[in-house]
Amino acid sequence: MNGTHRLAQIPPGVQCFVGEEARRRRLVEEAVVSVFEGWDYEEIIPPLFDYADVISGETLAPKTYSFVGRDGNVLALRPDFTSLVAKIAAGRLRDRPAPMRLFYSGEVVRYEPVKAGRQSELHQMGLEHLGGDARAADAEVLAIAAECLDRLGARGFVLALGHVGVFGGLVAGTGLDAERLEALRERVESKDPEGVRQALEGAAVPAATTVALERLTAMAGGLEALDEAARAFDFCAPAAAAVAELRAVASALRAAGLADRLAVDLGEVRGLDYYTGLVFRAFAPGLGFEVGGGGRYDTLLARFGRPLPAVGFMLGLDRVALLLERQGATSKSAPAPALAIHGGELGAALAEARRKRADGARVRFGNGGAR
Amino acid sequence: MNGTHRLAQIPPGVQCFVGEEARRRRLVEEAVVSVFEGWDYEEIIPPLFDYADVISGETLAPKTYSFVGRDGNVLALRPDFTSLVAKIAAGRLRDRPAPMRLFYSGEVVRYEPVKAGRQSELHQMGLEHLGGDARAADAEVLAIAAECLDRLGARGFVLALGHVGVFGGLVAGTGLDAERLEALRERVESKDPEGVRQALEGAAVPAATTVALERLTAMAGGLEALDEAARAFDFCAPAAAAVAELRAVASALRAAGLADRLAVDLGEVRGLDYYTGLVFRAFAPGLGFEVGGGGRYDTLLARFGRPLPAVGFMLGLDRVALLLERQGATSKSAPAPALAIHGGELGAALAEARRKRADGARVRFGNGGAR
Repeated sequence: MNGTHRLAQIPPGVQCFVGEEARRRRLVEEAVVSVFEGWDYEEIIPPLFDYADVISGETLAPKTYSFVGRDGNVLALRPDFTSLVAKIAAGRLRDRPAPMRLFYSGEVVRYEPVKAGRQSELHQMGLEHLGGDARAADAEVLAIAAECLDRLGARGFVLALGHVGVFGGLVAGTGLDAERLEALRERVESKDPEGVRQALEGAAVPAATTVALERLTAMAGGLEALDEAARAFDFCAPAAAAVAELRAVASALRAAGLADRLAVDLGEVRGLDYYTGLVFRAFAPGLGFEVGGGGRYDTLLARFGRPLPAVGFMLGLDRVALLLERQGATSKSAPAPALAIHGGELGAALAEARRKRADGARVRFGNGGAR
Repeated sequence: MNGTHRLAQIPPGVQCFVGEEARRRRLVEEAVVSVFEGWDYEEIIPPLFDYADVISGETLAPKTYSFVGRDGNVLALRPDFTSLVAKIAAGRLRDRPAPMRLFYSGEVVRYEPVKAGRQSELHQMGLEHLGGDARAADAEVLAIAAECLDRLGARGFVLALGHVGVFGGLVAGTGLDAERLEALRERVESKDPEGVRQALEGAAVPAATTVALERLTAMAGGLEALDEAARAFDFCAPAAAAVAELRAVASALRAAGLADRLAVDLGEVRGLDYYTGLVFRAFAPGLGFEVGGGGRYDTLLARFGRPLPAVGFMLGLDRVALLLERQGATSKSAPAPALAIHGGELGAALAEARRKRADGARVRFGNGGAR
């Protein structure tokens, strides 16, 4: 590969948007930011990179781009915002009383396999609600997520609720080793009750637990799945408590007119490893993957020295833009055509352009015509 | 240094803004973007990083943070936008007719010595005008820079004009070696005529050139300095041509009502090494360094296979924000106070919050009171 060739290439997975595409992204961002501000969240602009050990968790750490800083420390480009916001909330903002409501909008970078066609560079818009009453905060965050998608004109979206404490409660105390646990999680995720049974073969797991884990694979759909879960997991206190939390939040959202926007998926047990409670993903017709999601993470801030419960969510700008395009919901954003100002003496033409600008017109200067 | 200690630290030179500070930055960005769009520039969102060899020039290359990508190539975080925009204009946008008007707004990262207290992470807002009539484009870009600063409420700013062809024309053909040339440039920059004489001692440089280079150190101030330069450099065709270009642009700007905003500094010979013509910096009372600047670079695009003349400029968001703060010109941006909604049953309270939001109110949910 020679230098000239390289100069024209673009690294795999990076972004590049021009013109109308960039304009639509800016409009999406403005709409989401206005909703965040409407719920009294304050913007936080964290660094693009931080010490690599700030990035927590087995999910993100291997995807982090790192490099050596001038001071010899290993730095990492942020692969998401939550860890950085948690660190800042616990450090620089340690004197602010809780609850804190913070939002962000910016780029993250992840190491993705070239062949997967995934983006390495993504724009995330999200918020974190730190401290405060947990059920109220969970309900608030879900209501904000719904308002964002409504405001953007997304049609038919649902917020699919889960809770890491259901699966976690059922397997707690079973003594399953990490490998078997991972296989089990994978089978639950695949909604494969037969596979769940096989994954538990030979393990000293109570029969009730095996049955419950099999049933977990089918607990997806409308809110009635929560009633079924309450009955099915009655025997297991932590799993039952998780279901009760979900029901309280779902009940509040229903009372607030959001019943149509809610779905349940208790078999959804993937997700970032810092989640400790309610988790959710936003889906909409036209996109085969979630447009965003979030959840509760009650232990992350303690890592940075300020134990606070927390919940947050994030929308992927790239995914939102793709969804709106597929749904034909991209806003009519074309700006007023620019007034072409050209010809004649340069100074006189520029004076005219400045007068038109002062009158509020868009101008296109000196190229002989509007596009 | 143990892990806990590190977790609370922040790498030197990175950004972190919260609340009102972040809000003011967003307002500044919106104002500047609206001016760029008002002159019919289209946004371009280039990648955060690219192959390291795209980053051109002796000024920026050593300041670039680089790392090894998954494909084994050396990647570099963008230290400015111009090289990336040039590459995209010559590559992905090669079928678009010139002139192209593109703007950007985003973060750049530079390796700065820790002790200098300089930021490694900066937000730049700028534009590039590619192709088209050079004098008209130069004048347009300067008029836009002035409009941005006016719109932001900056007081007393001036755009100080220079031209790399003045110094370049005077030293062309003198056969000075690189080391002596650098010493000479440094003495001109320091406005030290005695030092200029010393730097040229023993070199076979015509007396007229030595005198002209000494005089260059004093050619700063109002537009009359351009008349003086025209007389003084009459003997040197390339320097005289550079001065004539500057006078044509200054004359157009004067005719367009911008005489008050113009200054001249022909002894300003630093700057990015890709500049080939007019250069300028924007200064304002209250800030001891420029708030932004730009210039003409007619050879950069050819490097990427599409020879096009070009001119651009950039404002530093961090510097603009600091300037406005020091001038007391930060906009009254506090949002309407949020309506506190709390107490009672969670679902009923959330329903009320959603009703208020639908009416356009800002709300603060469930924490027992407004801030």
